[in-house]
Amino acid sequence: MAVAKPVTACVLIIGNEILSGRTQDKNLAYLAKLLNEQGVQVTESRIIPDDTDVIVSTLNHCRQAFDYVITTGGIGPTHDDITTDCVAQAFGVDLHTDPEIEAMIRKRPAANEEQMAARMRMARLPEGSKLVRNEYGPPGYKIDNVFVLAGIPNVMQSMAQSLIPMLSGGEAVKSRSIEAHLTESEIASPLGAIQNAHPEVSIGSYPFFKDGIYGTSLVVRSADEQLLEKVFEQVKELVHSLSTKSA
Amino acid sequence: MAVAKPVTACVLIIGNEILSGRTQDKNLAYLAKLLNEQGVQVTESRIIPDDTDVIVSTLNHCRQAFDYVITTGGIGPTHDDITTDCVAQAFGVDLHTDPEIEAMIRKRPAANEEQMAARMRMARLPEGSKLVRNEYGPPGYKIDNVFVLAGIPNVMQSMAQSLIPMLSGGEAVKSRSIEAHLTESEIASPLGAIQNAHPEVSIGSYPFFKDGIYGTSLVVRSADEQLLEKVFEQVKELVHSLSTKSA
Repeated sequence: MAVAKPVTACVLIIGNEILSGRTQDKNLAYLAKLLNEQGVQVTESRIIPDDTDVIVSTLNHCRQAFDYVITTGGIGPTHDDITTDCVAQAFGVDLHTDPEIEAMIRKRPAANEEQMAARMRMARLPEGSKLVRNEYGPPGYKIDNVFVLAGIPNVMQSMAQSLIPMLSGGEAVKSRSIEAHLTESEIASPLGAIQNAHPEVSIGSYPFFKDGIYGTSLVVRSADEQLLEKVFEQVKELVHSLSTKSA
Repeated sequence: MAVAKPVTACVLIIGNEILSGRTQDKNLAYLAKLLNEQGVQVTESRIIPDDTDVIVSTLNHCRQAFDYVITTGGIGPTHDDITTDCVAQAFGVDLHTDPEIEAMIRKRPAANEEQMAARMRMARLPEGSKLVRNEYGPPGYKIDNVFVLAGIPNVMQSMAQSLIPMLSGGEAVKSRSIEAHLTESEIASPLGAIQNAHPEVSIGSYPFFKDGIYGTSLVVRSADEQLLEKVFEQVKELVHSLSTKSA
């Protein structure tokens, strides 16, 4: 069975706090798994600072190079939330205030004009956007092939669930994995032979150290389920034969 | 005081397992903090797959665009460990077997020739490399402005400690932070005014939800310590005045 060209995505993580090491990103792993279930492969991710030039040029490169771009971060009410301005600049479109978001924001009373004005920054959308709703507050949005989501993980996850129906995915990559109580070098050569015989599947080898034991996780990945099972059987047999020998 | 042009680094995280969401990267945050202490700012990070063309072209772009590039992952003994081949290709140099690493690897007995041959992949270095040692096994290396490190966090961390003396850093960015029991929109406008008045410092605003309370962490960052203290005092006063009002 021929596997169609994969549908690809790049996750753009926007925020100085990730690059300084202050905050540990958790959005990439969540998005990667969710998108894969929809048949969209995250084939690259970039973590970039709150810098207009960098955001605009990275957006413009990535929206050409990948089928989808998902951004996280920088859509809140403060001065360092510049993602929306950058998206408008990248697409060369104006910002407008979305009446639905404005109404949503006005429903919650503010202490003063200043606070309401700050919140209203979140009602600004680049022309041509569609809302990506979430259960907590002001939505993210989609413009062309770019989804613009929040950075806070629970808000981001809620938006990510809403974007699913807006994706046109291909085939999901399935995976099977086994943990071998073998070092990588014990299994490297025959494992490489299996990979060489089946270039259409991807076999990953990941060493671990757990409960005082060195081992290797072997992960076989493919969109072709039959081939996946066939190659995984070979990997499993290899692990069993080597484990019997070394035991 | 004029702050010198920052010394920059890009962290290249190489590995399908990060992009599939199977493994959570922990190396970026470690490297970002360590490098900043040496006066090197991580201003971008890219997470890329085990794909020769992507690794080579990304390496060649990033080693021009940043003062340093730090790669993690893909230097083990299995078929999917292709970083070293890609580094040699990117620099247009040959690989050779390093006698010191070869001796280190031969010291540990192998079950058979195949296993020793697999391990010996880790003794191959691009011409012109310097070793970046670690306490666990075969070293990483430095070639020109590129450091090539392991992906397993404890090994990576040990290599990262060894690379410190090989860096020529600038001024470290210091930071001061305060947690405000205020929402971002309550503080956005006056905080933006402080940022506008001091464009040389970076003020970050990060909302959180902890123990049932919404709050905002405010982080002031600058390489100029005196200015940092001055601006941080203003942010602190702002938080206190607003907290008193809203209490």
